[in-house]
Amino acid sequence: MELLNALEWRYATKKMNGNRVPDESVTNILKAAHLAPTSSGLQPFEIIVVTNPELKEKIRQVANGQSQITDSSHLLIFAAWDQYTEERINKTFQHMNTERGVPDSQTDAYRLSLINMFTKQTAEENFNHAAKQAYIAFGTAIAAAAALKVDATPMEGFDNKALDELLNLQEKGLKSVTLLPLGYRDEENDWLFKLKKVRKPKEEFITELA
Amino acid sequence: MELLNALEWRYATKKMNGNRVPDESVTNILKAAHLAPTSSGLQPFEIIVVTNPELKEKIRQVANGQSQITDSSHLLIFAAWDQYTEERINKTFQHMNTERGVPDSQTDAYRLSLINMFTKQTAEENFNHAAKQAYIAFGTAIAAAAALKVDATPMEGFDNKALDELLNLQEKGLKSVTLLPLGYRDEENDWLFKLKKVRKPKEEFITELA
Repeated sequence: MELLNALEWRYATKKMNGNRVPDESVTNILKAAHLAPTSSGLQPFEIIVVTNPELKEKIRQVANGQSQITDSSHLLIFAAWDQYTEERINKTFQHMNTERGVPDSQTDAYRLSLINMFTKQTAEENFNHAAKQAYIAFGTAIAAAAALKVDATPMEGFDNKALDELLNLQEKGLKSVTLLPLGYRDEENDWLFKLKKVRKPKEEFITELA
Repeated sequence: MELLNALEWRYATKKMNGNRVPDESVTNILKAAHLAPTSSGLQPFEIIVVTNPELKEKIRQVANGQSQITDSSHLLIFAAWDQYTEERINKTFQHMNTERGVPDSQTDAYRLSLINMFTKQTAEENFNHAAKQAYIAFGTAIAAAAALKVDATPMEGFDNKALDELLNLQEKGLKSVTLLPLGYRDEENDWLFKLKKVRKPKEEFITELA
């Protein structure tokens, strides 16, 4: 399976060589993230693609100086809804129903049950739920990059608040969740490239209840 | 790209036909989940594979009666660490270092910084972080299933506490996160199969900062 080969090939690249990822590959990685499933199809997150060198430099400064941010050609920022709102949920259902030729009345009960559920939860619970949906797409984008032989470094280690301010994410009702610089490994200078990929023993990972 | 075709083909199957997924496909789906990246390589979750019909029936009862649970041949349960502990982190590093032939002393500073970070956070914050890692593998498993033309229904809608009790997950220091029944779509009887796959407009999903 192409996917398993890709997952074996990839690793969290620590040093990139600065080469540019072709636009077509980036488009396909974004398509994969866009197609990833989310709870009730709400897609409660967005992806910001940064190619501007000055902006990448500023982002690097709030991300522990990690060099992949500036050595990547495209930096993907996954940012989740800070809150589920009635407006957002309604908008999603209206779009979905229009595309499917389904009358809104047919989805009203389900839509209202979602609004009821989310508005009972705290903003933090809702953001956590939205962030988890972003992680599904994050994983899908990582797999897609690998399938295209594009390196990517999944990153959580950055100052989320500082990044949100830098990009004015609050205005859009978003909060940054993860970063994914896209580029190419610098095999000579990447310490991690030389090390074996290790996963925990399968018997500690999988339990069968037959 | 095989992956994009797979993501286009898949949907959250609402009615499965009871046919059995070959063991080889299940093994490959689990391999993909096992290879998925996680924060610091800690893999803070496990997967429980349920094939036992009586147990699937019991699980269905705490999962809003969703029929895919019993009509699937294999039910995957993603369960995350309830807490990051020094013991768990040490064990992961020891295994990784042994496999790589790296002396423990070389990773001590990083290992201790992780222990320091996680022990400062609440159990809930740590569980949330572990759950997010499980979502990366969850997304990877969904993509792998689709690539193998196996249907899968991502599920969050179940009584987590009741499932944890049913499977004695607390004893293992785990809490259930998501379910993924594996099987085959029943095209005739699945209302969702007939509907168009809809995603939000790309311009609402992607922002480019060039």
